[in-house]
Amino acid sequence: MAPFTRRRSRSVTALGEGRLIAAIRRWLGAASPPPPGGIGDDCAVLPTLRGRPLLTIDPVIYGRHFDASVPPAAVGAKLLKRNLSDIAAMGGRPVAAVIALTLDRRVSLSWLEKFYRGLAAAALRYGVPVVGGDVAEADGALAASLALLGAASGPRAVTRTGASTGDWIYVTGLVGDSIRSGHHHAFTPRLAEGAWLARRPAVRAMMDVSDGLAKDLRELTPRGAQPAIAADLLPRRRGASVASALGEGEDYELVFALAARAGRPAFERSWRRAFPRVRLSCIGRFAPAGKLPPGFLDLEAFPGYEHLRKGGPR
Amino acid sequence: MAPFTRRRSRSVTALGEGRLIAAIRRWLGAASPPPPGGIGDDCAVLPTLRGRPLLTIDPVIYGRHFDASVPPAAVGAKLLKRNLSDIAAMGGRPVAAVIALTLDRRVSLSWLEKFYRGLAAAALRYGVPVVGGDVAEADGALAASLALLGAASGPRAVTRTGASTGDWIYVTGLVGDSIRSGHHHAFTPRLAEGAWLARRPAVRAMMDVSDGLAKDLRELTPRGAQPAIAADLLPRRRGASVASALGEGEDYELVFALAARAGRPAFERSWRRAFPRVRLSCIGRFAPAGKLPPGFLDLEAFPGYEHLRKGGPR
Repeated sequence: MAPFTRRRSRSVTALGEGRLIAAIRRWLGAASPPPPGGIGDDCAVLPTLRGRPLLTIDPVIYGRHFDASVPPAAVGAKLLKRNLSDIAAMGGRPVAAVIALTLDRRVSLSWLEKFYRGLAAAALRYGVPVVGGDVAEADGALAASLALLGAASGPRAVTRTGASTGDWIYVTGLVGDSIRSGHHHAFTPRLAEGAWLARRPAVRAMMDVSDGLAKDLRELTPRGAQPAIAADLLPRRRGASVASALGEGEDYELVFALAARAGRPAFERSWRRAFPRVRLSCIGRFAPAGKLPPGFLDLEAFPGYEHLRKGGPR
Repeated sequence: MAPFTRRRSRSVTALGEGRLIAAIRRWLGAASPPPPGGIGDDCAVLPTLRGRPLLTIDPVIYGRHFDASVPPAAVGAKLLKRNLSDIAAMGGRPVAAVIALTLDRRVSLSWLEKFYRGLAAAALRYGVPVVGGDVAEADGALAASLALLGAASGPRAVTRTGASTGDWIYVTGLVGDSIRSGHHHAFTPRLAEGAWLARRPAVRAMMDVSDGLAKDLRELTPRGAQPAIAADLLPRRRGASVASALGEGEDYELVFALAARAGRPAFERSWRRAFPRVRLSCIGRFAPAGKLPPGFLDLEAFPGYEHLRKGGPR
């Protein structure tokens, strides 16, 4: 659906700021609590937080993260889910979201309504109130940045550091082909899985896969180690190449390090009991640097998504 | 300073994502704590919060909130201070900021460095770590959205609701002429003043003046009342017209309602002891609707800044 219209009466300009904000609150519906816990005051005033706060921000930008081929409701849901995936990667739970919307005057009200209704449906599904925001105009733009406040759901937040040489590398779900398959907007953020993993001390480090496994894994790799990944262990989406599984990105799966001495069979059994429908794959381990065993992939050959370099929507 | 350059070697593309993020962390310096409390993990993990959380988001957009005439360091500082003003308006204290940056490939590294160094200086001055963010590309764009997490600094956050007919209307500092005077980027957010006011139960409702007093006051006005403001009581910046003082906006001062039965002289004396250099003006009171006393201004004649209607940088 095209986000821009030539007909002023169908564009956001037809409403002006005050009525547009009222419309946004109507579109958000039950996802938008009344002020001061929601939209309408200088800040949202939230209930006292249990657990350490987590804070993250991610945008969706027309021409970059979506185009006219993605349904606007899916764009709205994706904006929230991208950020939920970051909360999931720490093992946290989401608390509240605020959104800065930037739009051209020609943005169609119909597009925007579907965007907010899609966002609201995702917000209700994952229990995240949309508590504030800002609407600003910019020529030619259609972008929204969502900041998400979360909290650690247990005694710890799992960071990217903490893996050791010898640790096993696991990934949830399937990877690769995320754009063509529509997974890049249809995915489910791994909130329950992340919280479950955070409660297991043998899970040493974790992150979500957004720029591709090859690039993202560098962030988890301990000093003096390198990831030893086998191509045939990669849980590839049907039809996805190894290159896509390692470098396309937007998988929004969790990748984590399991302590070398952890009991893998028992760990995998309890995973299957907790998440019988979510695949969990051990794709390799952290080998000593420069000692890549034969038959394993050299990840340096798969650069992953590099922002400010390549083009194309994502 | 022009934010765009034709020379690739001087643009953000020359660095690419990884080195650009490293440069941003260097430019932020001491304002950017190490992960997981800062940039570099999926979320920032913050210390346990005392007080109820406050959450807000506001952008700065090239061509809208600034242009090439505003020094980039001032743009960076303004981005943070706009949000600090919202925290001040609740009587809160800031905790941590995250930033979503959207830029064209031609944005000059030199402009961006000055922007982040100005932001860092303001972050250090107001004690707000910059704990995370995102960098994304968009053709022709230069915009940043900053989300600010704060906390109530005392037993309550002061909202926009709570004023009653008869309450006095006060405003801090000077209003009007904010663009021409440079106040729109040189202002000081009223954090200490807001926290002080929040500790006084006679302060019933409060907000910051961003769209102009005439428009913003509507938000504070209780049902069945209207603001009765006298032109000669307005603390106008030198040379500012009444229309500018009421409708130009970007004053970033606090406007609040003081209970009708509060002792004004004692209140004003304690203000002067606490803030000897910050002017405090009683500009009128909330009169019964339809009973505007003679000699008072009809605020309906001053529309204030309406987003998605007018042009010009702000």
